[in-house]
Amino acid sequence: MSRPPGRKQENHKISRELFVLTYGALVAQLCKDYEKDEDVNTFLDRMGYGIGVRLIDDFLARSAVKKCRSYSETADMIAQVAFKMYLGVTPSVSCSNTAGNEFSLILDKNPLVDFVEELPAERASLCYCNLLCGVIRGALEMVQLAAEVTFLQDRLKGDAVTEIGITFLRKAEDRKHKR
Amino acid sequence: MSRPPGRKQENHKISRELFVLTYGALVAQLCKDYEKDEDVNTFLDRMGYGIGVRLIDDFLARSAVKKCRSYSETADMIAQVAFKMYLGVTPSVSCSNTAGNEFSLILDKNPLVDFVEELPAERASLCYCNLLCGVIRGALEMVQLAAEVTFLQDRLKGDAVTEIGITFLRKAEDRKHKR
Repeated sequence: MSRPPGRKQENHKISRELFVLTYGALVAQLCKDYEKDEDVNTFLDRMGYGIGVRLIDDFLARSAVKKCRSYSETADMIAQVAFKMYLGVTPSVSCSNTAGNEFSLILDKNPLVDFVEELPAERASLCYCNLLCGVIRGALEMVQLAAEVTFLQDRLKGDAVTEIGITFLRKAEDRKHKR
Repeated sequence: MSRPPGRKQENHKISRELFVLTYGALVAQLCKDYEKDEDVNTFLDRMGYGIGVRLIDDFLARSAVKKCRSYSETADMIAQVAFKMYLGVTPSVSCSNTAGNEFSLILDKNPLVDFVEELPAERASLCYCNLLCGVIRGALEMVQLAAEVTFLQDRLKGDAVTEIGITFLRKAEDRKHKR
């Protein structure tokens, strides 16, 4: 109880519950502000984008990871290092197409909805965790990777798992170089 | 990199930066919604109250602390266990009156403002972290302790430290019993 504040204070580790409840308060506020679910989803994604753009520096500094050499490595990094670091869970990753630029992050358990029973009937189209998509998109953009990030399945909507789809958008020049 | 998800997933520990940035997005949204700083402060406090009311169960379960026998013990518990658990820092605690029901939590460093440079000039009365006051108030109320919780000093406003004041409100019956 009486150990003095010291080095351990700077390890940046916290329990996630205050975050999860604060996120819930943010979504509730946006639902008050915007009538349409689509508008809330868009706003959460945009807000997340702004967060991702700033979070990437922290991630690179704290994880000390090397440059990824493939989309597959990048997807693994997001799931196994970033999700673990910021949400305390590790989604499984699978590649969803032969071109190798579409990936799914599958969350058996989504800590962000820990305190959410279910979506209210009038909010059936809400992507409650859409902030995460924006965060991933924003962070990837800062390491020169354009991507589309969306929820493909959501346990809050009755799906068996929660699935985030990441599609890396290849640039025309990239394709040319690879041929 | 390839360790399977397992027991460690459930330790609930995360890096706080995503939380800190998400909190910033919440405050920014409220500043859009409410013109007056006082209204934002009130709203943050109320929102925090709702969070504290729900967070207390998590805190009691996770910390496995025993019942506090004095206001002083309670203030220490908030600083040394709860702040450490949910924000990763340990404020110092001092009692501010002879009656022994007023306490100050002093934060040399407030992680919630990690990404905040300074308050905009037009938001000089904003209590940026007022959510915390509400959280403490709500959580205390659930263990039958009424309290007033406010920011007394704030580094964001140029003060040397950030100081949260907690005044436990004694009930008339309590006083009677103690005599």
